[in-house]
Amino acid sequence: MLFMVEMDVNIPLGFDPEEAAQLKAAEKARFQELQQAGTWRHIWRVVGQYANVSIFDVPSNTELHDILMSLPLYPFMTMHVTALCRHPSSLHDDDR
Amino acid sequence: MLFMVEMDVNIPLGFDPEEAAQLKAAEKARFQELQQAGTWRHIWRVVGQYANVSIFDVPSNTELHDILMSLPLYPFMTMHVTALCRHPSSLHDDDR
Amino acid sequence: MLFMVEMDVNIPLGFDPEEAAQLKAAEKARFQELQQAGTWRHIWRVVGQYANVSIFDVPSNTELHDILMSLPLYPFMTMHVTALCRHPSSLHDDDR
Amino acid sequence: MLFMVEMDVNIPLGFDPEEAAQLKAAEKARFQELQQAGTWRHIWRVVGQYANVSIFDVPSNTELHDILMSLPLYPFMTMHVTALCRHPSSLHDDDR
Amino acid sequence: MLFMVEMDVNIPLGFDPEEAAQLKAAEKARFQELQQAGTWRHIWRVVGQYANVSIFDVPSNTELHDILMSLPLYPFMTMHVTALCRHPSSLHDDDR
Amino acid sequence: MLFMVEMDVNIPLGFDPEEAAQLKAAEKARFQELQQAGTWRHIWRVVGQYANVSIFDVPSNTELHDILMSLPLYPFMTMHVTALCRHPSSLHDDDR
Amino acid sequence: MLFMVEMDVNIPLGFDPEEAAQLKAAEKARFQELQQAGTWRHIWRVVGQYANVSIFDVPSNTELHDILMSLPLYPFMTMHVTALCRHPSSLHDDDR
Amino acid sequence: MLFMVEMDVNIPLGFDPEEAAQLKAAEKARFQELQQAGTWRHIWRVVGQYANVSIFDVPSNTELHDILMSLPLYPFMTMHVTALCRHPSSLHDDDR
Amino acid sequence: MLFMVEMDVNIPLGFDPEEAAQLKAAEKARFQELQQAGTWRHIWRVVGQYANVSIFDVPSNTELHDILMSLPLYPFMTMHVTALCRHPSSLHDDDR
Amino acid sequence: MLFMVEMDVNIPLGFDPEEAAQLKAAEKARFQELQQAGTWRHIWRVVGQYANVSIFDVPSNTELHDILMSLPLYPFMTMHVTALCRHPSSLHDDDR
Repeated sequence: MLFMVEMDVNIPLGFDPEEAAQLKAAEKARFQELQQAGTWRHIWRVVGQYANVSIFDVPSNTELHDILMSLPLYPFMTMHVTALCRHPSSLHDDDR
Repeated sequence: MLFMVEMDVNIPLGFDPEEAAQLKAAEKARFQELQQAGTWRHIWRVVGQYANVSIFDVPSNTELHDILMSLPLYPFMTMHVTALCRHPSSLHDDDR
Repeated sequence: MLFMVEMDVNIPLGFDPEEAAQLKAAEKARFQELQQAGTWRHIWRVVGQYANVSIFDVPSNTELHDILMSLPLYPFMTMHVTALCRHPSSLHDDDR
Repeated sequence: MLFMVEMDVNIPLGFDPEEAAQLKAAEKARFQELQQAGTWRHIWRVVGQYANVSIFDVPSNTELHDILMSLPLYPFMTMHVTALCRHPSSLHDDDR
Repeated sequence: MLFMVEMDVNIPLGFDPEEAAQLKAAEKARFQELQQAGTWRHIWRVVGQYANVSIFDVPSNTELHDILMSLPLYPFMTMHVTALCRHPSSLHDDDR
Repeated sequence: MLFMVEMDVNIPLGFDPEEAAQLKAAEKARFQELQQAGTWRHIWRVVGQYANVSIFDVPSNTELHDILMSLPLYPFMTMHVTALCRHPSSLHDDDR
Repeated sequence: MLFMVEMDVNIPLGFDPEEAAQLKAAEKARFQELQQAGTWRHIWRVVGQYANVSIFDVPSNTELHDILMSLPLYPFMTMHVTALCRHPSSLHDDDR
Repeated sequence: MLFMVEMDVNIPLGFDPEEAAQLKAAEKARFQELQQAGTWRHIWRVVGQYANVSIFDVPSNTELHDILMSLPLYPFMTMHVTALCRHPSSLHDDDR
Repeated sequence: MLFMVEMDVNIPLGFDPEEAAQLKAAEKARFQELQQAGTWRHIWRVVGQYANVSIFDVPSNTELHDILMSLPLYPFMTMHVTALCRHPSSLHDDDR
Repeated sequence: MLFMVEMDVNIPLGFDPEEAAQLKAAEKARFQELQQAGTWRHIWRVVGQYANVSIFDVPSNTELHDILMSLPLYPFMTMHVTALCRHPSSLHDDDR
């Protein structure tokens, strides 16, 4: 099941740079794990923002919630979730 | 170059159903042409709305503008365009 | 899977009252069918509005979309969909 | 009498984790007490947010106010209250 | 139980003036009936607007809903309902 | 002359509780003084908020401004002022 | 007593030009009458808008309401009223 | 050339009162200098707010910008600038 | 003196196409006249919208107002005007 | 390819003035470098704000993103990016 998740990241001025770097590395590792599993299907940067637009493919709302809440950068993120579904005109099986 | 385009369709109550059906068929044909060309890379329905979230891959802003303005349903659409770019963490070459 | 759907109904001034009555009767029949099936789990009126707050329990986003788009009053509704999930503190199995 | 209460929780970065854990435990205990009393009829998590949608059944506005203001996490919450009432089409006596 | 109801009235340009006058007279009669019953406790005009701020005292949400929906000018009104309760500092029993 | 004033109070987390208690006591005393003088005609709590809706009866805008700016809790309040006037349909001389 | 009133005028496309010209002439005459009386103290156009920012000096809220509601162009206007008062730093008696 | 400038002042809780008093005195002095020069033509307090509505008469946008940015309280202000012009109906040469 | 003007054009569905074409031709002619005069310094299309972002260079607010209000498409436009000034860091005399 | 970027700068009260001066000097140097390269085609100050409206000409979305994210003042900026394209009516080759 598909969801668009728009994530804005806001790390406060003066936050310890080393801790920030560790969180970002952990976030990247977790992201790639989920990408390889096919759960985090797409991610794009929003130009000029520390933000992304992502597409998730999950078996249930609960699983999506658990994934998002456990992201390393979650405490610094504002999220907006939109439920999507396959468009009937699409020729790609992939855009399920 | 990647852009997210969010399209809301609003065909007024009492609009001629036959004309609406023709416009939708023309829209679908144009969409599939652009999808096969790799220009309209993704499309998803927004649950509960006559609306979609789409990802375009175009050589320039001008080309995107010309594509959007000439869509058969354009006069009935409200559009919101967001410039995107490849996310450095992505493992997929495809999310360029 | 649970979703909150907030529905506002706006039938234009001067709309044929008989046609409106037929649409409302069809909406009520469809609602009760879905309520008995356990799909439309809850519905409440919003005080002072021709509007409701509803909870749906569906197997997928696509099924929710198809249900909402085919409601008899859909062309007169503005909808807002929010993905929900079971709260871990809840003592009721029912609030799944 | 029914009310929807939408609660967003925002515990600041750097808040003492032990105190936070105690507040959350107290909140959970209070919630379950109210749920068993039939006052806090429903609670659902909002996907991707530290937030919930709740339905309260109370004898008066004043009682609802007193309950909400005395929640252990109240100082960290933003609340939005919507007065609801039974929908005439509902087949369930329960959705009073 | 107390509620603030903010009502904005918008009668479209070109609406039959005689029908408008009848609706306003019926609205005034209904208002005074409810005012005398102590249900519609207060009403004030908003300066520069065809709008009012009102305070209702009703036994239940449902009764408020039924009163508001059956006002003669309801189809021309936008309403915003806010649940209130007695303020503990008030010296007036009347501001219950 | 009548005005509605909507006041939201926001005392920051970690503010000295004793100082807060003193400010609240001073606010209550000032409120009751103004209520007895007939200046602060009504006050109601907004359910679920540390907020109130109030009606003031003052001889001039300037007097209202001076009263509001000198409230003990003013530095912690967000205020919204709406000019009101007597509604011609009202049967109560009191709703002047 | 001083008030800022922001007025936006919106005469619909296709409205009879002669009737519009009559309404504008009546509005101008009424404005100049009020300006000479010292009631409508200032008026300025907002650049690029069919809109103005005005300052009224009136003895009461009710008088302001009656003046605004009886303007010839009132049915085509959206108004926003803000209560003002003399600024203590002003050297001009005129900015009362 | 005329501009409306709406200024909201927000001095944080706990800011040194002596420094605040000095800034306010400097602001008042600068204001009166500009008022006497005819540049800051009008100022009014907004009732219930630490805010003002002002009218400036300046030879150019740049001069207005330089004046506003160098106000002693500028770092504590949020400003909204609206370009105005003389209203053709005005009888006062003064409302140029 | 420089101003940014953001213009959104909205010609209603069903508007006579011939009249629309005449208005657009008149708008284009007027635009080019003002562009050659150096008054309408820049114009850009907003991607996906029937809208533009423009930069005007005018001797006064009044002249800008008169130019905008007399544009052939003005009755179909929503405008937003922002006063600009030369940026001190700019190396181009042209960005005055 | 053209983009409008609206930048608001917000340096917190109490930020070290020397560090701020260094950041501003670095920002100015970087800006002038990009202006000379033809990338940062235009910049204007917004009157009364520590903000600018800028026009960028870049080969791709990604390049724009990299430029914006690496600006010395980026951590203090809020940005809004709008994709633009050449207007067909423009007589200037320069407004490409």
